[in-house]
Amino acid sequence: MSSPELFAVLMAGGSGTRFWPASRRAKPKQFLRLAGKRSLIQATWDRLAGLVPPENVLVVAGEAHADLVRKHLPRLPSGNLLCEPVGRNTTPCIAWAACEIERRAPRSVQVVLPSDHVIHPPKRFRELLRLSAEAAAAEDVLVTLGVRPSSPATGFGYIEQGEPAGAGLFRVARFVEKPERKRAEEFLASGRFLWNAGIFVWSTASILKALGEFTPQTLAGARAIVASGVKDSYAALESQPIDRSVLERAHNVRVVPVDFEWSDVGSWEALAEFGPGRAEVVSVESSNCIAWTEQDEVVALLGVRDLVVVHAGKVTLVCPRERAQDVRALVAAMEQRDKRFV
Amino acid sequence: MSSPELFAVLMAGGSGTRFWPASRRAKPKQFLRLAGKRSLIQATWDRLAGLVPPENVLVVAGEAHADLVRKHLPRLPSGNLLCEPVGRNTTPCIAWAACEIERRAPRSVQVVLPSDHVIHPPKRFRELLRLSAEAAAAEDVLVTLGVRPSSPATGFGYIEQGEPAGAGLFRVARFVEKPERKRAEEFLASGRFLWNAGIFVWSTASILKALGEFTPQTLAGARAIVASGVKDSYAALESQPIDRSVLERAHNVRVVPVDFEWSDVGSWEALAEFGPGRAEVVSVESSNCIAWTEQDEVVALLGVRDLVVVHAGKVTLVCPRERAQDVRALVAAMEQRDKRFV
Repeated sequence: MSSPELFAVLMAGGSGTRFWPASRRAKPKQFLRLAGKRSLIQATWDRLAGLVPPENVLVVAGEAHADLVRKHLPRLPSGNLLCEPVGRNTTPCIAWAACEIERRAPRSVQVVLPSDHVIHPPKRFRELLRLSAEAAAAEDVLVTLGVRPSSPATGFGYIEQGEPAGAGLFRVARFVEKPERKRAEEFLASGRFLWNAGIFVWSTASILKALGEFTPQTLAGARAIVASGVKDSYAALESQPIDRSVLERAHNVRVVPVDFEWSDVGSWEALAEFGPGRAEVVSVESSNCIAWTEQDEVVALLGVRDLVVVHAGKVTLVCPRERAQDVRALVAAMEQRDKRFV
Repeated sequence: MSSPELFAVLMAGGSGTRFWPASRRAKPKQFLRLAGKRSLIQATWDRLAGLVPPENVLVVAGEAHADLVRKHLPRLPSGNLLCEPVGRNTTPCIAWAACEIERRAPRSVQVVLPSDHVIHPPKRFRELLRLSAEAAAAEDVLVTLGVRPSSPATGFGYIEQGEPAGAGLFRVARFVEKPERKRAEEFLASGRFLWNAGIFVWSTASILKALGEFTPQTLAGARAIVASGVKDSYAALESQPIDRSVLERAHNVRVVPVDFEWSDVGSWEALAEFGPGRAEVVSVESSNCIAWTEQDEVVALLGVRDLVVVHAGKVTLVCPRERAQDVRALVAAMEQRDKRFV
């Protein structure tokens, strides 16, 4: 059997506030160089090299960020950028991309992935995607990648790994939404649970079939947009994550436990995993701080510990590392005070 | 008796590091707008308005800062800027200015003052200088202004107030160098001690006479510089504070206890006295921090307290308020790392 054509869908619609003040409404996290010299979306693009040809990479992003996408991914064909008039979570995004890919190559397989994760090494990532794509080409399955938990994190959905289903895949016993701490500790101890990384592999036919079964209105809306080229109706599509709309309900979901390093880079705190942060730091009697600045800036620390210190776009942020996930409270306060900085 | 002509000498040779990163070698504290819209040296100039005419104001500053002085004080006559080739503390500075003023008006009275203090209200400041100047015109005395202590500060020299000497002046029982904490507490409790504010009033004749008695070589050197216009020999003058060289040894020193608000703005910590600092601050669950930035910048604080947060010249400083006086340690570390930021 010859391999079916492989497409990739980069979901770049995120507009989170957890990397404020570096991330702004006009420049969300995926466009930041948080870990290395390339932005997260560029690193995601790079990671697909050799697996998916550029002409088969689609990016779904907010209209406000279209220029940024073009700037960060100059080799992306212009017709491969799907601009959402408004964000509607992952289900309409995936449905739209699936219909567009169906139009081009109905017998293809797709990998669908966030554009703002950090993964290492890329080679192993591609190997597991290839393995998953082969399974998805051979069988009507929806494959999701599962990350072996390294801590009882409460910020992820969990997947309970079921019976082996051949070629490195496993059945899914159940999906569990973000758990309480105690439950997360049990999941970690059991060894049977994986983090839902939000990276999916399926044939175009399989995802269209599942969407048709579980969320037919969204699929019909997406088909209409692709057929007409008019996307006014996008805002009317139901805003739902694909986990909720399809994966938790479908019986043909498979999980591939992955052994590459993975981070969703969920807050400034996560930056500690990638070294001391992107800042020149001068430090006296200080320890365990995370610093990040624009280029050619310096952070000077004296007698402090466990702080996040960021300077970006005329804003200086200081908070304890353990409060990094609450930065959104500052964004909300700033929203009231001076929208220029939001 | 007609009032003698009044001169002012602004000592602007300071090059401290305690306001780093806002202050730099190229732009010391006196040129910063730490408390209000005018730099400290501009506020010092403003404060003399109506007391000393601009043509009688002399500024002594380092050669490297001559352009900054001209920019901050555009009404300063060019011949009134005395540029030190090197800093030699206050004795050579005062001797040089005294000789220059002697050349212009030997029967004059001078006020000699630092250019980097904060004083309020200016009206009361001028009243007490005028009172001191009248005393200095009438009698061969060296008048120093003494600030009633508000805390057992260990960073100032103290003056023990002696017997009344007419017209608001007192004799000086003794000068005490910066005391230990316990001793400072005793001074505060006694009610007899004043902080030495480093603001002096004397007739040109009286200071020249005292310099001739206690530090004749420095006086001779200063006279030679004024006579020749060549200041190569300035570096050879003994580096000493005027308190040490003259005031602690002279028997005609008088002190005027002052009742205006005064601060030498000795560290970022001192900024708390003047309000929340010059920064737009957005704060969530944070308290008691001092923030300072360049214009149109914001400081965002989440879950922190008692911190100093400064952003200036591409450097972000974070330290506890109680460590603010140790910022020089960071400057020393920076000196080793990247001199661009020193």
